[in-house]
Amino acid sequence: MKVLLIGANGQIGKHLVDLLQNSNEHTIRAMVRKEEQALALKEKGVEAVVADLEGPVDSIAEAAKGCDTVIFTAGSGGKTGSDKTLLVDLDGAVKTVEAAEKAGVNRYVMVSAFQAHNRENWNEKIRQYYVAKHYADRMLRASNLNYTIVRPGGLLNEPGTGKVSLAENLERGSIPREDVARTVFASLGEKNTYKQSFDLISGEDSVEEALKNL
Amino acid sequence: MKVLLIGANGQIGKHLVDLLQNSNEHTIRAMVRKEEQALALKEKGVEAVVADLEGPVDSIAEAAKGCDTVIFTAGSGGKTGSDKTLLVDLDGAVKTVEAAEKAGVNRYVMVSAFQAHNRENWNEKIRQYYVAKHYADRMLRASNLNYTIVRPGGLLNEPGTGKVSLAENLERGSIPREDVARTVFASLGEKNTYKQSFDLISGEDSVEEALKNL
Repeated sequence: MKVLLIGANGQIGKHLVDLLQNSNEHTIRAMVRKEEQALALKEKGVEAVVADLEGPVDSIAEAAKGCDTVIFTAGSGGKTGSDKTLLVDLDGAVKTVEAAEKAGVNRYVMVSAFQAHNRENWNEKIRQYYVAKHYADRMLRASNLNYTIVRPGGLLNEPGTGKVSLAENLERGSIPREDVARTVFASLGEKNTYKQSFDLISGEDSVEEALKNL
Repeated sequence: MKVLLIGANGQIGKHLVDLLQNSNEHTIRAMVRKEEQALALKEKGVEAVVADLEGPVDSIAEAAKGCDTVIFTAGSGGKTGSDKTLLVDLDGAVKTVEAAEKAGVNRYVMVSAFQAHNRENWNEKIRQYYVAKHYADRMLRASNLNYTIVRPGGLLNEPGTGKVSLAENLERGSIPREDVARTVFASLGEKNTYKQSFDLISGEDSVEEALKNL
């Protein structure tokens, strides 16, 4: 599969760049916001395109042309406030869904947030962010794409263990970003995950087992 | 029809309170956020309930019980910033759609924003607000309700003329809030407006004619 990785410069994104670059099955096109980010990726031998989630759907669709899959792991980050949450985490994300449909991509893996589907379980401190993720996920589910929505628990920077737990609903937990990336990566060709959404935390099963038993 | 008016204390909402209170066809239950607002309405002889758009869907569904129609004309206002835009204008609005479905209400009239369906035509200064309205409208359209989405142009406080122009897409214009309220009111029982969305500005036709010719 040729994968358009949106948010290649993010913390989970960087792990995915590595996984995709070393894959025999998949190839990567990284989508980033700034020319300098694209140059840095190209220097590492990674195909990269510049496109802005705040720009038109058509320019994102152009970036997606020829790809089989979109991975969305972009985010406005915690520092820019709710303006960007609306423009990037919600509208930007939904634009990439529309762009995928326009470009004829039919596989889409979304990195969402733990329990984003259940308002009662949203983290009160970042409730606004949860609103954006919730509706981006709902729009993706309403699309015609073969989506997978991955909702990781508290994100850690420590090295991954490769052992996870995933299900429609889990008790809150945490997970290294590296293991989120591994799960997203392993889900790409796993048809068992098409049209599925799941919470994801550290656990007992290998990523591959966990996805097969979903 | 028994109408749950959400946002009864807003500027368009107040015109709708008057229209509904003086109607022979419809009766009103006003939904407001504060006890004091409910008391003021009750003193005018208007049935009123207190419910919070930031609260659970169930409490809004409770407020909607026994009504045939929901009118949504609430808004966080321009002063509270994008946090409330996410929590009220988007998530709050969608909760009322879910509440209507839960309560067995099947008619819903949404006051949206001019060209909310076309990203290219959003007002750049309040683009965040447009994101919220856009997705609230999309979620309403994806519901099973007999919705009407009214997208007024620039809102004026001058007295209404009763003459409007409405269509799927119009050139930008303005309209008195009183005429928006009249159009919402007249659309309630107008089956021609079910499952329809339209821009609305001042024009040449009476509200009733304009709705019939939609």
